[in-house]
Amino acid sequence: MSDSRAKIQPRVLKGFRDYLPPAMMIREKIMEIARRVYRSYGFSPIDTPALEYLEILLGKGGEETDRQLYKFQDHGGRWVALRFDLTVPFARFAAEHIHQLGVPLKRYQIGTVWRGENPQRGRYREFVQCDFDIIGTRSLAADIETALVINDLLGAIGFQEFTIRINNRMVLSGILERLGLEEKAVPILRALDKLPKVGPPQVLKEIEESGVAPERAKSFLEQVISAGSQEDNHKLLEALEVAVGPSHTGREGVTNLREVLAGVEAAGIPRSCVKLDPSIARGLDYYTGTVYETFLSAAPEIGSVCSGGRYDNLAALYTDQELPGVGASLGLDRLLAAMEKLEMVTSAVTPANVFVAYFDQERFHDYLRICSKLRAFGLSVDFYPEPKKLGHQLKYADRRGFPVAVIVGSEEFHRGVAKVKDLKNGVETTVPLDPDCRELGRAIHTILSGQTGITAD
Amino acid sequence: MSDSRAKIQPRVLKGFRDYLPPAMMIREKIMEIARRVYRSYGFSPIDTPALEYLEILLGKGGEETDRQLYKFQDHGGRWVALRFDLTVPFARFAAEHIHQLGVPLKRYQIGTVWRGENPQRGRYREFVQCDFDIIGTRSLAADIETALVINDLLGAIGFQEFTIRINNRMVLSGILERLGLEEKAVPILRALDKLPKVGPPQVLKEIEESGVAPERAKSFLEQVISAGSQEDNHKLLEALEVAVGPSHTGREGVTNLREVLAGVEAAGIPRSCVKLDPSIARGLDYYTGTVYETFLSAAPEIGSVCSGGRYDNLAALYTDQELPGVGASLGLDRLLAAMEKLEMVTSAVTPANVFVAYFDQERFHDYLRICSKLRAFGLSVDFYPEPKKLGHQLKYADRRGFPVAVIVGSEEFHRGVAKVKDLKNGVETTVPLDPDCRELGRAIHTILSGQTGITAD
Repeated sequence: MSDSRAKIQPRVLKGFRDYLPPAMMIREKIMEIARRVYRSYGFSPIDTPALEYLEILLGKGGEETDRQLYKFQDHGGRWVALRFDLTVPFARFAAEHIHQLGVPLKRYQIGTVWRGENPQRGRYREFVQCDFDIIGTRSLAADIETALVINDLLGAIGFQEFTIRINNRMVLSGILERLGLEEKAVPILRALDKLPKVGPPQVLKEIEESGVAPERAKSFLEQVISAGSQEDNHKLLEALEVAVGPSHTGREGVTNLREVLAGVEAAGIPRSCVKLDPSIARGLDYYTGTVYETFLSAAPEIGSVCSGGRYDNLAALYTDQELPGVGASLGLDRLLAAMEKLEMVTSAVTPANVFVAYFDQERFHDYLRICSKLRAFGLSVDFYPEPKKLGHQLKYADRRGFPVAVIVGSEEFHRGVAKVKDLKNGVETTVPLDPDCRELGRAIHTILSGQTGITAD
Repeated sequence: MSDSRAKIQPRVLKGFRDYLPPAMMIREKIMEIARRVYRSYGFSPIDTPALEYLEILLGKGGEETDRQLYKFQDHGGRWVALRFDLTVPFARFAAEHIHQLGVPLKRYQIGTVWRGENPQRGRYREFVQCDFDIIGTRSLAADIETALVINDLLGAIGFQEFTIRINNRMVLSGILERLGLEEKAVPILRALDKLPKVGPPQVLKEIEESGVAPERAKSFLEQVISAGSQEDNHKLLEALEVAVGPSHTGREGVTNLREVLAGVEAAGIPRSCVKLDPSIARGLDYYTGTVYETFLSAAPEIGSVCSGGRYDNLAALYTDQELPGVGASLGLDRLLAAMEKLEMVTSAVTPANVFVAYFDQERFHDYLRICSKLRAFGLSVDFYPEPKKLGHQLKYADRRGFPVAVIVGSEEFHRGVAKVKDLKNGVETTVPLDPDCRELGRAIHTILSGQTGITAD
């Protein structure tokens, strides 16, 4: 019975997205890899509510974030808001639970966040963040580990060529100190952060606009760019040593960078994967030490796909306990944009390996048994639910991108065999149909192991 | 520097929860199993926004749900609301995308939903649903598959004894028809749904309160309960055949139940796992065919941990295309309550297998190398970031429940060995420390394979 009432137009809000199976499969795959890599370093998962008291979230990300907050009064008249990142909720969480959990605490959190900003290409009002942090330690071992996690993460997802660009905020502070520009650090570093996007003249203009004399602005930017032009990390460190001069902060920054680089190398990361870059500032004001950005060699225009840094005190707004830490966040949407561009994703609509066609209604129970046996062999099996024409069923299979089809009609049942079709090359083989479907299972595994390509499964 | 400003009290909203590592690890584990089982039947993942237009969500779950909606006006003045289940968004999704995706469509969706109801024990304002549905087919093959998925799901999570209780709404309609009570179907079935919770007298009272004559109310309930008292499914089917009498709908319901049972058995599910239960009604009005509830033998008081059913038309509010289907939803919170009660979860705070202590600062790079090598062996390794006293580090390891600790001090480095400690029984062994850490990796794997118990990993 069709409902004759007026229909409600099915649509999603601007800036929000439905994920259809091909997109969702690859998203799930990446999140699974992230969880696996985070865990392999001993990071534990946590989660926090999507809704928090407004006072917890307000004023933590600056004016722009405040404007973008989805906030409202709940049923009890409380002002609440949807989280706009995972850092602020983690700070609140740490203040509340750190006594129970103890330090150092290594946590990861994969969750949805909401920002009511103007949707642009590649910018959404709802998106997923994949954060990991080590808090409660100032040890550079944690800074080194952060770079190792980023490296393993991108490798596990399937990227061969990428660069983790590392800097230390103290180095920039040192250069600013030497030039007498400490007080202008915030606007200068915010401007510097835009360097790869807008280029040196625009950065210079912005620094000058914040009230810095043109020649000093120029001197700062030149030193950063000229040190960064050194291809070799060790020469670059020497250039930075000169640039920070006698500044204690600056010298400590250079020493830290040197130790982080040496540690990353000792852990076996190829030297080419990690590059010092004195122009990396990170927009967020709360970074105080090592900062990270990660660029894909084949898609640098997408921007950093994994960024983060060290901070002095995570949860100062909620607790007196000092919680220094370091962490980073994987940008799922940017990563997916890159993977699509680099054709690293298939368009399969099904996560199943095997399509079992349904012909002979009399044999319904035999099909059910075959499917169960194949699943017991570790195969994912989709059984077509209706005994429709083979052409119709194969169209369904084709549209969804199954790698293998199993075809058993009355004729095959009578002969005690099954047909297995490799749907990538069209080759069909016939195998005996023993009660446990061993031959069939083996034949399917053989076909699957011969098919290549990165899939969502 | 500690921030001396007044602190904001760190707290979560009533009815909302933080998940600490032990809770989150087991939640992630169950969601991973659910994804794996759903995929093994060819269900594809999808996702939809947490926020939808209010008009999409309003009036779809009844008055109570409307009252519980978290709704507000967004930055553009649009009325929006947080989803209160995954079924309504899936209906909207199907109406919008079914032409592109085609039928039958098998989808799963694991997502957070929000309901501003009064928080009670075990009831939250934010919780996760794990739904799976097959839409676009009336074939009983889909009803059978739904029971198979539920069976595999609970088995994979680790439950040995449970009962999937199956009924068919048409059987209940048939009995009601025979008694001339069709028009009272909605209140009667709502009352019947509470049977296990409130008992027969209360159900009877509620049916009578809806305006049904006491003797007819009694007759209905007696027939349902007496048929349900048959231990054997086949005798139960016979009793139901009598109860529905000449009703076409009722007879079709009995036939369908018989076919579903036979199919489930043919697929190899033990007979004891699936039980007909004519008192299962499900509160939701939109179920029209097979209905499912699942009870754990060791914790029946927790209620159904996986419920669902067949419906005639999913998306009638948004499209003219008829989309019959069948599906169910795994109740994550109930399942976890049961697992905790049955002591099926460990209290580990870390997902890592191996704790590597840090003693000798001079050997920092060697520790980094050892950790990398062990990870390359598939181990999860947490390296303590500071060279603190061993007692302090072992306390950290103990508190987090690592199974294995690796201890290499100056003495061990000098001798070219490593100590491996089984933290479950305290036994310590010493192995050679070759450059690739092969011996060490093997020794750890041996210890891990000897340790038993269900863990979150």
